Amino acid sequence: MHQKIEAILPQITFNEQGLVPVIAQDFATSEVLMMAWMNREAIEITLKTGKVHYWSRSRQALWHKGETSGHFQQLKGFTIDCDGDTVLIKVDQTGPACHTGERSCFFNKIPL
Amino acid sequence: MHQKIEAILPQITFNEQGLVPVIAQDFATSEVLMMAWMNREAIEITLKTGKVHYWSRSRQALWHKGETSGHFQQLKGFTIDCDGDTVLIKVDQTGPACHTGERSCFFNKIPL
Repeated sequence: MHQKIEAILPQITFNEQGLVPVIAQDFATSEVLMMAWMNREAIEITLKTGKVHYWSRSRQALWHKGETSGHFQQLKGFTIDCDGDTVLIKVDQTGPACHTGERSCFFNKIPL
Repeated sequence: MHQKIEAILPQITFNEQGLVPVIAQDFATSEVLMMAWMNREAIEITLKTGKVHYWSRSRQALWHKGETSGHFQQLKGFTIDCDGDTVLIKVDQTGPACHTGERSCFFNKIPL
């Protein structure tokens, strides 16, 4: 990284729970795979290791994506939005991103 | 729409503030343009009219995207994620999506 993590974290606005929403997009196809949350620790570990970590709100624990499923995400890009309250990451997704086995969590398409 | 709005809304899990995060993606290029929030009313109006409406958390008001800037979003797709707590929309974006004049709100790219 060209910027130190200590310089990146202050650019991010965390919510009252200390979390920021993170959109994961396939780095090759641009498909949006999932949306999850990170806290400061998850961001630090993700940036340091290149292995994507989230904060699991249901388990209230750091969540190394793929740790149990093998469906890891390798970090390929990290972008903060204009007001700092959302992060977009590009990832190299091993296998499906969704726990249902679908490639993307966004498969319930409403016909317009 | 093939499904009635009354059948779509129960598929969505709103947070304690009655809101759901919505990712807007360019329908042609797949670029992620912004992330904002909708309440039930914003979803209903968006689905009924095809003109994307959000809920402005700062103004605490319904927000017809483009109403003041002219940078409207025409709805092209509406997908709910696996656990119903995030929405992904595809849009035809007139002009820039971001209030800064950038095409996408995600322009603060951290070099890895």
